[in-house]
Amino acid sequence: MFASPALVYFEAMIRTLEWTDDGIVMIDQRLLPSEEAYLTFKTAEEVADAIRNMVVRGAPAIGVAAAMGIALGVQQIPSKDDVEQRFADICAEIQNTRPTARNLFWAVERMKKAFEKNRGKSLEEMKSALKNEAQQIYCEDIEINRRLGEQGQTLLGPQQTVLTHCNAGALATAGYGTALGVIRAAVAKGKKIHVFADETRPFLQGSRLTAWEMVQENIPCTLITDNMAGHFMKSGAIQAVIVGADRIARNGDTANKIGTYSVAVLAREHGIPFYVAAPLSTIDLETPSGEFIPIEERSRAEVTEILGKPVAPASVEVANPAFDVTPARLITAIITEAGIARPDYRETLPRLF
Amino acid sequence: MFASPALVYFEAMIRTLEWTDDGIVMIDQRLLPSEEAYLTFKTAEEVADAIRNMVVRGAPAIGVAAAMGIALGVQQIPSKDDVEQRFADICAEIQNTRPTARNLFWAVERMKKAFEKNRGKSLEEMKSALKNEAQQIYCEDIEINRRLGEQGQTLLGPQQTVLTHCNAGALATAGYGTALGVIRAAVAKGKKIHVFADETRPFLQGSRLTAWEMVQENIPCTLITDNMAGHFMKSGAIQAVIVGADRIARNGDTANKIGTYSVAVLAREHGIPFYVAAPLSTIDLETPSGEFIPIEERSRAEVTEILGKPVAPASVEVANPAFDVTPARLITAIITEAGIARPDYRETLPRLF
Repeated sequence: MFASPALVYFEAMIRTLEWTDDGIVMIDQRLLPSEEAYLTFKTAEEVADAIRNMVVRGAPAIGVAAAMGIALGVQQIPSKDDVEQRFADICAEIQNTRPTARNLFWAVERMKKAFEKNRGKSLEEMKSALKNEAQQIYCEDIEINRRLGEQGQTLLGPQQTVLTHCNAGALATAGYGTALGVIRAAVAKGKKIHVFADETRPFLQGSRLTAWEMVQENIPCTLITDNMAGHFMKSGAIQAVIVGADRIARNGDTANKIGTYSVAVLAREHGIPFYVAAPLSTIDLETPSGEFIPIEERSRAEVTEILGKPVAPASVEVANPAFDVTPARLITAIITEAGIARPDYRETLPRLF
Repeated sequence: MFASPALVYFEAMIRTLEWTDDGIVMIDQRLLPSEEAYLTFKTAEEVADAIRNMVVRGAPAIGVAAAMGIALGVQQIPSKDDVEQRFADICAEIQNTRPTARNLFWAVERMKKAFEKNRGKSLEEMKSALKNEAQQIYCEDIEINRRLGEQGQTLLGPQQTVLTHCNAGALATAGYGTALGVIRAAVAKGKKIHVFADETRPFLQGSRLTAWEMVQENIPCTLITDNMAGHFMKSGAIQAVIVGADRIARNGDTANKIGTYSVAVLAREHGIPFYVAAPLSTIDLETPSGEFIPIEERSRAEVTEILGKPVAPASVEVANPAFDVTPARLITAIITEAGIARPDYRETLPRLF
């Protein structure tokens, strides 16, 4: 299942999701860091709910979960007669969970291609082929993050403090991480990296997940609330910003966790480089610019309640866009497994494929 | 006790703090909006703790609480022989609570002047004079906010959406509010104002206090997390920003709740006017610029726990500056009870006094 011993090492530390004989096992990211609990999902519908309810989150991890969910659904098709309709239903169920992350749609497309390729085969062969494809996506994701990290770490000096927003770490991927993969790779090279982690309201991926990952690996990490980023940039504490991405349009406009845009404006104001780290599967060449990226609006309770306790009057109006779009002009470079793209992204991004 | 029926009206709605025969009664701002509980503080030391622990917060309200705390302490001095030393001790105790808010030091100075003026009088006359001075500061604060609101509302159009950060409302003052006083005055003039309230981590003054005040008065209010402000500015939803202040330096640099600086940078990026609303007692002509304003660092638990529940790994490092400094160049105007100052503030601010 693992592509190399190095990957086994990283997986042993933080196991985001895994295919097992009992179903798809995921760490419940809603409970971290207070509880390290693993849930097992036994049907495609259950996997769809896990994506929708953010048991698993982060664009690359959603992509892997989607592929595994489809493969799991296919295992449960009883006869070849049903296979076309059932496969279409499973894909629709998985795809109809979250609208923004490109990797979800990318993974569904890839599973559909694998299905096409194996259409003539027996049901058992089909099941085996789709299970293997999902496993392949899983393993590739870790390898891709390693290559991406290797590329990205060249952008960091020997001793730097790097701000990150949300969690683009092992927990947002099959393992290793994108933005945190760059940091891990820099640390592995002996660079002294200090991470500033935005807590990332409302879901607190920074305090709950990024801080947890950094503590696990003894990478120095200072947790701040989102509204402190500007203050610390002004004070000179931050030398670079690295974030992940949920979808990158053809022109480089990048949808990522709400608050990323504000961080990018602040980075520009202070002359701090702002890097996006994402696999090619996050880049959507079909979407010309950020205005065409659908932005998910999530429930008001994410804002008005924290850990189930109310923090606002019950009747107040709430807005809760889960993502925002950072325009390409604020992005210093986009780090991928295939290389580092710089503006003009309309030229440099297609060249990576 | 109240200067006009209008003030009684506002006080009847939201009672931040009050001098009573039993002691100083304050609404416990740590429990809002879930609980509307009032605490009674019976000594100057207890009032000092209430300021330190943020039972009461907001620079003008801290000033009023400080004056009342000193007056309360003076009531309990047993003999004229002790009065000099006891008064000095009481002032030191009250002053040594929070370092940033100018109004705290302003109120202590004013109580010291009242003490000087009444030094020759009997102990009973002294007690009465200092009690009256504290009451006077209380009443003046509400009147000042009303005048400030009247000035500030002229800056708002007939139909606008205004972003505010933290709580500069009735709860941050003796009543009516500074930034929210401007909004109340605009609404009273028949203007259609929609408030966007940053939740304001870590203490959640926006979601817990500003949203609560707006809901009480049926002023339309949309609650957002701090990191959403940039997104809604980019979308065109916000036409103005109004915030309060904890200390304004002679050159216009303004210390206010952490996150204010980021909002100011974002407002500038989007061509949105950024207004600071504060009484003259917040302006510190002795402090030449923002770099000389002491910034309070508060406990790590405010960031790592929300409502007593952990949201981050126990061992992560934390930074928790309670304030940041917005440079004068980002401030469109400073609204006071004596008029609206515009740059160059080194010239316009002293003229207000």
